[in-house]
Amino acid sequence: MTRTPLRVIPLGGLGEIGRNMMLLEYGDDIIAIDVGLMFPEEEMLGVDLVIPDFTYLRDHPGKLRAVFLTHGHEDHVGALPYFLREFNAPIYSTRLTDGLVRVKLNEHRLLATAETNVVEPGELIQAGVFEVEFFTVAHSIPDACGLIIRTPLGLVVHTGDFKLDHTPVMDQHTDLIRLGQVGAEGCLLLLADSTYAEIDGYTPSEQLVGESIRNILVNTSGRVIIATFASLISRVQQIIDGAAFTGRKVFVTGRSMIDNVAMARQLGYLTAPEGLIVGVEEMRNTPPSKLVVITTGSQGEPTSALTRMANGDHRYITISRGDTVVLSATPIPGNEQAVFRNVDNLFRLGADVLYNRISNIHVRGHASREELKIIQGLLQPEYFVPIHGEYRHLVVHARLAESVGVPVGNAFVMTDGDVLEIDDEAAQLADRIPASYVYVDGLGIGDVDQHILRDRAHLSTDGVVVVIVAVDKQTGRLTRPAEVLSRGFVDVEEGSDILERAKQVVSRALEGAAHYAEFGDINGRIKDSLSKFLYDETRRRPMVLTVTVEV
Amino acid sequence: MTRTPLRVIPLGGLGEIGRNMMLLEYGDDIIAIDVGLMFPEEEMLGVDLVIPDFTYLRDHPGKLRAVFLTHGHEDHVGALPYFLREFNAPIYSTRLTDGLVRVKLNEHRLLATAETNVVEPGELIQAGVFEVEFFTVAHSIPDACGLIIRTPLGLVVHTGDFKLDHTPVMDQHTDLIRLGQVGAEGCLLLLADSTYAEIDGYTPSEQLVGESIRNILVNTSGRVIIATFASLISRVQQIIDGAAFTGRKVFVTGRSMIDNVAMARQLGYLTAPEGLIVGVEEMRNTPPSKLVVITTGSQGEPTSALTRMANGDHRYITISRGDTVVLSATPIPGNEQAVFRNVDNLFRLGADVLYNRISNIHVRGHASREELKIIQGLLQPEYFVPIHGEYRHLVVHARLAESVGVPVGNAFVMTDGDVLEIDDEAAQLADRIPASYVYVDGLGIGDVDQHILRDRAHLSTDGVVVVIVAVDKQTGRLTRPAEVLSRGFVDVEEGSDILERAKQVVSRALEGAAHYAEFGDINGRIKDSLSKFLYDETRRRPMVLTVTVEV
Repeated sequence: MTRTPLRVIPLGGLGEIGRNMMLLEYGDDIIAIDVGLMFPEEEMLGVDLVIPDFTYLRDHPGKLRAVFLTHGHEDHVGALPYFLREFNAPIYSTRLTDGLVRVKLNEHRLLATAETNVVEPGELIQAGVFEVEFFTVAHSIPDACGLIIRTPLGLVVHTGDFKLDHTPVMDQHTDLIRLGQVGAEGCLLLLADSTYAEIDGYTPSEQLVGESIRNILVNTSGRVIIATFASLISRVQQIIDGAAFTGRKVFVTGRSMIDNVAMARQLGYLTAPEGLIVGVEEMRNTPPSKLVVITTGSQGEPTSALTRMANGDHRYITISRGDTVVLSATPIPGNEQAVFRNVDNLFRLGADVLYNRISNIHVRGHASREELKIIQGLLQPEYFVPIHGEYRHLVVHARLAESVGVPVGNAFVMTDGDVLEIDDEAAQLADRIPASYVYVDGLGIGDVDQHILRDRAHLSTDGVVVVIVAVDKQTGRLTRPAEVLSRGFVDVEEGSDILERAKQVVSRALEGAAHYAEFGDINGRIKDSLSKFLYDETRRRPMVLTVTVEV
Repeated sequence: MTRTPLRVIPLGGLGEIGRNMMLLEYGDDIIAIDVGLMFPEEEMLGVDLVIPDFTYLRDHPGKLRAVFLTHGHEDHVGALPYFLREFNAPIYSTRLTDGLVRVKLNEHRLLATAETNVVEPGELIQAGVFEVEFFTVAHSIPDACGLIIRTPLGLVVHTGDFKLDHTPVMDQHTDLIRLGQVGAEGCLLLLADSTYAEIDGYTPSEQLVGESIRNILVNTSGRVIIATFASLISRVQQIIDGAAFTGRKVFVTGRSMIDNVAMARQLGYLTAPEGLIVGVEEMRNTPPSKLVVITTGSQGEPTSALTRMANGDHRYITISRGDTVVLSATPIPGNEQAVFRNVDNLFRLGADVLYNRISNIHVRGHASREELKIIQGLLQPEYFVPIHGEYRHLVVHARLAESVGVPVGNAFVMTDGDVLEIDDEAAQLADRIPASYVYVDGLGIGDVDQHILRDRAHLSTDGVVVVIVAVDKQTGRLTRPAEVLSRGFVDVEEGSDILERAKQVVSRALEGAAHYAEFGDINGRIKDSLSKFLYDETRRRPMVLTVTVEV
C-alpha cells in the first residue's frame, strides 16, 4: 500500500484555475499540462501578458519529466517561450498544436534547443511514473485533445477545453468511446472544463454556423467580409466551402489569418479548390458579388485588419454601402467595447453588419451543462476538480458533479497554487505553492509588481505634478522660486494660474524650514502642503513628486 | 403655410444618442427633454462624470422655455445640477421624478433657485409654441413617462425609456390607448427607445421576477440578501411582499437604498406592513431564516454595501455558509468584471449566490423588438428617429421601423449634435451643433480634454521618469550628475541599476552641448536619448519629463 500521495496543482489563469497550466506530481516526478498565457485585465495597466508562476518547478529542479499540450490556443501554449528559457523537458502535442508551437518557438529562436514531439491520440507516453494518452475532443481548433493519465493511484482524466459536437466540421468528435472504457476501468480523478458550467443545455454544433454562413453568401448580393479567430480553422473551412458553393473567390487578410491559413493548408487541415483563394490583384478584379474576405479582428484588436477597415484605413479593403460584414465570433469578456465600436463604425461606413446578438454566426467551443453531465456519466470519477473557469464556474460545476453522482465532499473547488493530495484512502487540500501573477511588460518578466501597478493607477487617474526646488546648501533656503510642471492633471494653458499659485504654496511651506533640514523633511513638507492645496482647489489628487537640488 | 422648420437635436449619451438630452426647436422656442449624465468609459481615465454639451443653449440665450424629465434615473436627470448653474427654465416631471430631483438639487444647494413643477400624465404644459403632455410608460422606476408634444407642424412622440408590461408590479402600464389616440390624430415624428432593438421577442414582465423572489424566500432556509438598483422601487416592493408572505423581516442597507426606500415610503410608492422593516438591533436578534436584507451593490460598485460584504468588511453583515445572495440585476456593460468579482468572493465566503446567468431574478426595463413594432403600429409616424442606443441599435431600430411601415428614407439615424429639420414637406439632416463630451473631474467641468487624457493613458501604461539636471549658467555644463526618479516604470529597488545608467546617458547626451545651448534644446536632447535608452533596455516607453535648473 502506497502512502505517497498524488499531488494535483493548478497554476495560472488569472483566476480561471488551471486554464494556463496544471502540474501533477508523484514522488520525484512532475508532469505539466499546458503552459499558456493570459491577456491582462483592465487594472493591470501597461502589462503586456501574464504568465504562470514557475517558482515551484524552479524550487524542485530535476523533477519535471514532460510537458503535455492539450491544444494550440495561446492560453494553453503561449507561455512556452518564457518557460523554455528556464526549463528543458520534452514537449508532447498533436500535429497542429506542434505546428503552431514550432512557429512560435522559431520566432523566439528557441526551436533548436526545444524538444517537441508529435503524438497521435491513443499513443502512450511514459513520463516518470506517469503514462499519458491523448484522446480527441471537439473544440474550436483542430487536433484538440484531452489526456488520460495512468498514475500509481489510478486513472486521471483531463478534458482540456472541449465540447461535444456530434456533427463537427472537421470530423473531430470528443472520443466518447475511449472515455467509456476509462469509466469501465475506473476513473480516480476527473479534471473538466468549466468555462460554460453556467449555461444550461447543449452548445450547438459547428454545423449550424456553416449553414448560416452559406445562407448569408447565397442571399447577399454584395461583397461579404467575415471576421473570425485565426485559429478557428474549421470556421475558415466552412467559409471556403460556402464560397466554393456560391462561386465566390476568397481573399484572406490580417497577418495571423494569412499565416494560419498557410500553415493549415500546408499541414492539410484546410482544403480549397485550386484558384479559389486569390491575391490582391485578382481580388481587385473580382466583382463584389463574387468575393468573400476572411479577416482577423473579430475581437476588436486595435491594429487588426477589421479594425483598420472600420476606421477606413485598411490598405486593400475600403468598406462601402453594399458590403456585408459578418463577425463570426463572440466578444471575449473585456473586448465588448472594442468589438462594438467596430460594429458601429462599420454601420457608419454604410455596411450591413451581422454580429452575434442578431445572427446565428458563432457557436462556442466549450461544453454546456448537459454535456458536462454526460462526461460525468461516462467516467463516474471518484474525485472531481472543476478547472478552466472562474471561482463561480467551479462552484456550479462542482455542484453539478455532485448532483449526478460524484460523492458529496469529493468535488474540490481549488484556487491556483492549491495542492490537492490524493492517496489510496482520501483526498484533501493539503498544501499551497507560490502562484502569483507573473506580469510580462516589455522585456521585463515578473518585475512589475503591485506597487508599480498602484503607481500607474494613481498616475492614470489624476496625472502627475513635479516640483523642483533649489535650496542653498548653507542656509537651507530657496535660492529661487520653485519650478512646477504637470502632465495629465490640468490643462497646462488654462491651469497655469493654479500652477503659479502652487509655487507660492511651496515657498510658504518652506518658510519655517531650518537651515539643516533634511531633504526628506523638505520633500515631505512640500508634498503635504501641495497635495492639500491641489485637492482643495480641484478635488483631484495628482501624484506629487518633489526633487530638491542643493546649490 | 409655414416654412419655419421643427429642429430635432439629440445631445449627450456617450454615443447613445439623445439618451441624456434632446432639444426641440421651433423659431424662437427651445424645449429640452432630460438633462442626464453618463458614467465615463474605460479610456476616460480619472473622469468622474460626463455631461452633455450645453454650448448651443449658451449661444442662444433666451430661447429655452422649459425642461421636461421623462423619469428619475441618473442618465436622464443627473446633469441638472451642472445645467442649473447656467440656465434657468421651469422643470416639469411627474411626482417621483420630482422627489428624486429635489433631493439632488438640495444636496447641490440649488433648490431655492430652481423652479420644479410636478405634473400629472394627461395634463398640458405650454412652453412657447410647444404643448407638452406626459403619458405613462412601464420602466424600471415608477412614474416613468413619455411625452406627446404638439408642435406647429404636428404631433411628436418621445417614448422616454420604456417597455410594455401587461402585468407590471406597481400598475404602471405603458398607455397604449393614449398612443392609439395620437396615432388616430396623426403622428408626425416618433422618437423611440432603442436600447434593446437587437433583442427578439418581448421583454418578460416584472411579475416573473416577483415569483422567482418569492420562490427563493420560500425555499431557502437561511438568510437571504438581495441586491438591486436603489431606484428599482417596484423590485424593492416585490421583495417586501415576498418577505411579508414568508414571515421574514427586512433589513435595508446601503446609503442610496436607505434614502430611496425612505423617500419612496414617504411619497407612498412603497408600502410595508408595520414592523416589517427593522433596524440593526432587531436584525441582529432575528434568526437568519426569518430575515431578508435588501442592499445596494448590484453593479459591483467599489464602496457599495454588497461589495463590502463580499470583501468581508461590511459593518453589520458578515457573510457565511447558509447565506443566499441574490443579484437581482444584470451587469451594465463595463461592470461585468466588478460584479463577477463580488460573486466569486461571496462564493468563497461560503454563500450560495444566485445571479442573472443562472436564475430568473431580473428582467430588463426596455422594450424588445416585438414591443417596438407595437408602438410603430399604434402611432404609424411619418418620420422616425431611433434614440437611446448606440449606432448599431439605431440602425437596426430604423430598419425595424421601415419593415413595419415607416416610409423608406423617413427613418433618420442621427448622431449627437446632428440637427434634423422637418418642415411641412420633408425632413433632412440639415445642420450640426457642438456636441462634445464634457468631462467632469473633481471640481473641473470641461477642462479635462483629449490632451490630458492622452497624457494619463501614457502615464498609466509605463509610468513616468523625471530627470533633473543642474547646469552652470556660464558654461552650460552639468554642475553635478543628473537626478533621475521614476514612478510606475520599474521597481525602484530592482531597477536602481537602470536608473543609474540613465544618469550616464543624460551626461553623455549633454557632452557636446554648447555653452549657450537653449534649455529647450538641452531638454530635447535629454528626452530623446533617455527615451531611446529606456526603450532599448526595457521595451517600455515611460513618459520622460526633464527639468533643467540653471545655477
